[in-house]
Amino acid sequence: MERVCRFRVDGRESYGLIDGDIVYETNDLFSRDRGARHSLAGVELLAPSLPSKIVCVGRNYLEHAAEFNNPVPVEPLIFLKPLSALNGPGGAIVYPPISQRVDYEAELGLVIGRRARNVPRDRAWDYVFGFTCVNDVTARDLQRKDGQWTRGKGCDTFCPAGPWIVRKEDADFASLRVRGYLNGDLVQDAPVTDMIFPVDAIIAYITEFMTLEPGDLVATGTPSGVGPMRPGARVTVDIEGIGRLENSVV
Amino acid sequence: MERVCRFRVDGRESYGLIDGDIVYETNDLFSRDRGARHSLAGVELLAPSLPSKIVCVGRNYLEHAAEFNNPVPVEPLIFLKPLSALNGPGGAIVYPPISQRVDYEAELGLVIGRRARNVPRDRAWDYVFGFTCVNDVTARDLQRKDGQWTRGKGCDTFCPAGPWIVRKEDADFASLRVRGYLNGDLVQDAPVTDMIFPVDAIIAYITEFMTLEPGDLVATGTPSGVGPMRPGARVTVDIEGIGRLENSVV
Repeated sequence: MERVCRFRVDGRESYGLIDGDIVYETNDLFSRDRGARHSLAGVELLAPSLPSKIVCVGRNYLEHAAEFNNPVPVEPLIFLKPLSALNGPGGAIVYPPISQRVDYEAELGLVIGRRARNVPRDRAWDYVFGFTCVNDVTARDLQRKDGQWTRGKGCDTFCPAGPWIVRKEDADFASLRVRGYLNGDLVQDAPVTDMIFPVDAIIAYITEFMTLEPGDLVATGTPSGVGPMRPGARVTVDIEGIGRLENSVV
Repeated sequence: MERVCRFRVDGRESYGLIDGDIVYETNDLFSRDRGARHSLAGVELLAPSLPSKIVCVGRNYLEHAAEFNNPVPVEPLIFLKPLSALNGPGGAIVYPPISQRVDYEAELGLVIGRRARNVPRDRAWDYVFGFTCVNDVTARDLQRKDGQWTRGKGCDTFCPAGPWIVRKEDADFASLRVRGYLNGDLVQDAPVTDMIFPVDAIIAYITEFMTLEPGDLVATGTPSGVGPMRPGARVTVDIEGIGRLENSVV
């Protein structure tokens, strides 16, 4: 199954198509033309798109809302992460000196395929290009203290994404499970069908007020089981059929 | 005094340098090389930079915090507007059907000149390229209802900026006043020296957790006097020595 990525080789960045252990250069996120080939093992994978924005949904799994005694939302709870937070597979999640508690949050990421504005639910899937893994890293103490989540969710390196994109037509969405591992231990595990607001509702809600652009990243919320990471920890977002996003904490 | 802008002419977009009633094409935000010339009256001015993010400060003037009975913040209150909200001089501010109350908020905008990370206060001004006007348009009802301000502050067209950038060295910062006009009536008027957190403190605070990139836009907060706009209204952010940003509401 061909997957879509961005990568760096010899100091240059490119979009790419991965087939087995080979990555082919491509011109953009949507191209299917295979250019120069490289060994997958010899390139550095990057966050898999160049979004104009990163839109996240908070408290979108019932048991996660419950674990912090938050009410179940009646509408999707939307927030933004800045592009400066974007991080690639293998990238270090940097503990900021201003926080004493940084949590992992394993999530399914949607990559947008077409400009989307005022999209009705029954056409929302037309605007999804594919799926990736996202870790919505959160400085829980700053999130609680600030009211607005910009700082708690928006520190540099706080949005690992990747390792690649599986196109929508190559995934069996309804069967996907979001799993999070901390130092190899399974800590989060839920089917995406547990989302309070499903993908079509999320896209309809967001595009009622905000235009989504091709390549934009939408993180769909985390299941229960979130928790703190210590410097030195290894954290993994694993979605079988999509990929495995590994990062370390420093 | 030469000013820096972005503009559209013949369907093409370019950076530009404005001198009197002439605009010269340039290659980027920082270039001083004057290329092809156009009549300023014959081009469409756009938001004056292509930011990677728009970072805003809430409740940064004492009397504005007081007018909504909000406590005076002890740290800068930071939030993000998405790039999809960016709007140019003369652009229409579109009333979203989901809101019954859309407010103007006249603000001084900073345009960042150099990548900024962990910048100490005494060097913060080195990272400011120049000044522009920003209208931090806000759907007050959605802001209050949602908790997170993403929707209330982030609707398409909710971030008019411009009409151009005055370079830092060409402005007398300490003498600037932010004025807002609604249908020609003065509704906001305060010196920028009234900011609770001054520019150097804002930049130091933000860059402690988030890297600012060249061209990024930082809106520094609004004085008291904010209020609702009706469709058909004309709203102006006027900062003498910087420029006058006019938009209409539809």
